[in-house]
Amino acid sequence: MSRVWNFSAGPAVLPEEVLRQAADEMLDWHGSGMGVMEMSHRGKEFTAIAAQAEADLRELLAVPAGYRVLFMQGGAIAENAIIPMNLMGDRRVADYVVTGSWSQKSQKEARKYAEVNIAASSEAGGFTTVPAMAEWRLSADPAYVFTCTNETIGGLEYPFEPDLAQIGRGEVPVVADMSSHILSRVIDVSKYGLIFGGAQKNIGPAGLTIVIVREDLLGRAMPHCPTAFDFKTVADNGSMYNTPPTYGIYIAGLVFQWLKRQGGVAAIEAQNVAKAKLLYDFLDASDFYENRIDPACRSRMNVPFFLKDETLNDAFLAEAKAAGLVQLKGHKSVGGMRASIYNAMPLAGVQALVDFMRDFAARRG
Amino acid sequence: MSRVWNFSAGPAVLPEEVLRQAADEMLDWHGSGMGVMEMSHRGKEFTAIAAQAEADLRELLAVPAGYRVLFMQGGAIAENAIIPMNLMGDRRVADYVVTGSWSQKSQKEARKYAEVNIAASSEAGGFTTVPAMAEWRLSADPAYVFTCTNETIGGLEYPFEPDLAQIGRGEVPVVADMSSHILSRVIDVSKYGLIFGGAQKNIGPAGLTIVIVREDLLGRAMPHCPTAFDFKTVADNGSMYNTPPTYGIYIAGLVFQWLKRQGGVAAIEAQNVAKAKLLYDFLDASDFYENRIDPACRSRMNVPFFLKDETLNDAFLAEAKAAGLVQLKGHKSVGGMRASIYNAMPLAGVQALVDFMRDFAARRG
Repeated sequence: MSRVWNFSAGPAVLPEEVLRQAADEMLDWHGSGMGVMEMSHRGKEFTAIAAQAEADLRELLAVPAGYRVLFMQGGAIAENAIIPMNLMGDRRVADYVVTGSWSQKSQKEARKYAEVNIAASSEAGGFTTVPAMAEWRLSADPAYVFTCTNETIGGLEYPFEPDLAQIGRGEVPVVADMSSHILSRVIDVSKYGLIFGGAQKNIGPAGLTIVIVREDLLGRAMPHCPTAFDFKTVADNGSMYNTPPTYGIYIAGLVFQWLKRQGGVAAIEAQNVAKAKLLYDFLDASDFYENRIDPACRSRMNVPFFLKDETLNDAFLAEAKAAGLVQLKGHKSVGGMRASIYNAMPLAGVQALVDFMRDFAARRG
Repeated sequence: MSRVWNFSAGPAVLPEEVLRQAADEMLDWHGSGMGVMEMSHRGKEFTAIAAQAEADLRELLAVPAGYRVLFMQGGAIAENAIIPMNLMGDRRVADYVVTGSWSQKSQKEARKYAEVNIAASSEAGGFTTVPAMAEWRLSADPAYVFTCTNETIGGLEYPFEPDLAQIGRGEVPVVADMSSHILSRVIDVSKYGLIFGGAQKNIGPAGLTIVIVREDLLGRAMPHCPTAFDFKTVADNGSMYNTPPTYGIYIAGLVFQWLKRQGGVAAIEAQNVAKAKLLYDFLDASDFYENRIDPACRSRMNVPFFLKDETLNDAFLAEAKAAGLVQLKGHKSVGGMRASIYNAMPLAGVQALVDFMRDFAARRG
């Protein structure tokens, strides 16, 4: 077996240790005589797996008391509807900060359920920066302010935590789509009303959605919110009102334990800083490649780049693949290339990419 | 490794061949250098996996042209909301046939979106039978008639296909929740407007929902239906509007191929008939155990039974577990015991259960 360096934006590379353990336990988890996929979600084996996964996630992110962790389905795109259906309560307006494709999609979906105020947007500049909080124009009484703190497609990451107390609006809950950088850096959960993410980048398989929600935001669902997506119902039933994506929770739990063995979020953040610096420094020193994002707002997770001579794109991708470097094609809405370097991508993978890029430039430049 | 006989109602036992193949391919699918969980859902490897899974499901169920197969998230409980949100169109009323816990839950959820007419119910008799179609009182112009053709909790299965043409109402689409018996018996898909099921019984892991829908029913979603759950959006995007539960689709595909190797649905149906007959014949001949369902409507998949002396329940469960027979406790709303004997449960497992039950009765009777 020869593993490739997989730069997919998601679903994405998982730690080999996790995959090996999952393979080993596929037919028999801990002597139970069953694989995890075959276990009743209400049995003692699986409830222990889910409880451990939640406890480890709470430990990794230092989730304070007063927040609930929910294991849901539907991914971030479904949450774009589920969140306003749950959080609007008796308010009319929700505020959105638009910094790229994902927050754009989120605010469009929210218009089904709320009046949307675009509090800030970097669209005019082609989504290459994150508007400073001093520029955000919040409405008078929004139900929440929505942010996407890492834009997977554009390759843009908030260089600050959106702490509304800094602009005198600490009473408004901040919602953050952290799908593509959750667990990649230390955050202060207490600054947020709700954090959510699809699992298929830094956590595990597609089909699992993590929601971390402050308890006072539960119990406001609109009448037409499906019961299975009412946060209060999900919370009251320990994420088992409907059958949860059990195998995804198990794999997420293995990833959380792997992350703890790496030293936790602060330790992986240091590795992520080093990985991103290696790639961005190479890009900045090159006259063959370029990254077009405001350096202060570059994503550590998703690194889009362009060959200055785009007629070489196909050759670049073909030769990269032949060298064992795959999924480097940029999103169709952006073009060029994109290397996603999530937690499970080791520094050696980024080094292999830089080495290939240097060699390609030397031969083709 | 010692595998148990797992009678869980779902998530449930999977074929060992499937689990072995999944374990073998965990780190490297077909020489791609990636596990399936790590693949971009838009890459050529995964799109081939999904296309093959759909083709095999279509072949197994003989899905006619004019029907779309959707791979969704949320399970049957979420579909209880998603279906009326998609199918009500400009109609006011939806008809429900209530035969147990699941159809009861379905009609309650539908009241968020529709006026519900209970066309028939077997509640008065304790949900021990399926009302004959001649007794169904359909409303004048319902958007659809909802049925749950196998009630997992009660252990009740339709002994007929709900073909409304037989009562002169062939114009009304039939919706069928087949979660716990899909692929267990030959059906005529053309009799239905929509068939759905959570995967975690006869198909694969929890977190994947299969929807088979007639094309003329697409495009009627209510304005507040989340885009990710709008059947037309899902269909138009080949089930990839949002990232689908990729690993679940892969496992489902392996189960479909396993089922084809068993000879397809007709062949597995013959096995299911034999398995159910073995267990029900034993129950009927016993004065120690009993099943309380109308014999004509007994489920081949979920067999609830009671010890006539219920003070022996705990001893029964403990001794069964010690004998390697697990997950036999009945649903809390019914009590007693329940053996779920889905496609992946071999006749040998049912025989082992019957042998244990006979021995237990001899010792304790």
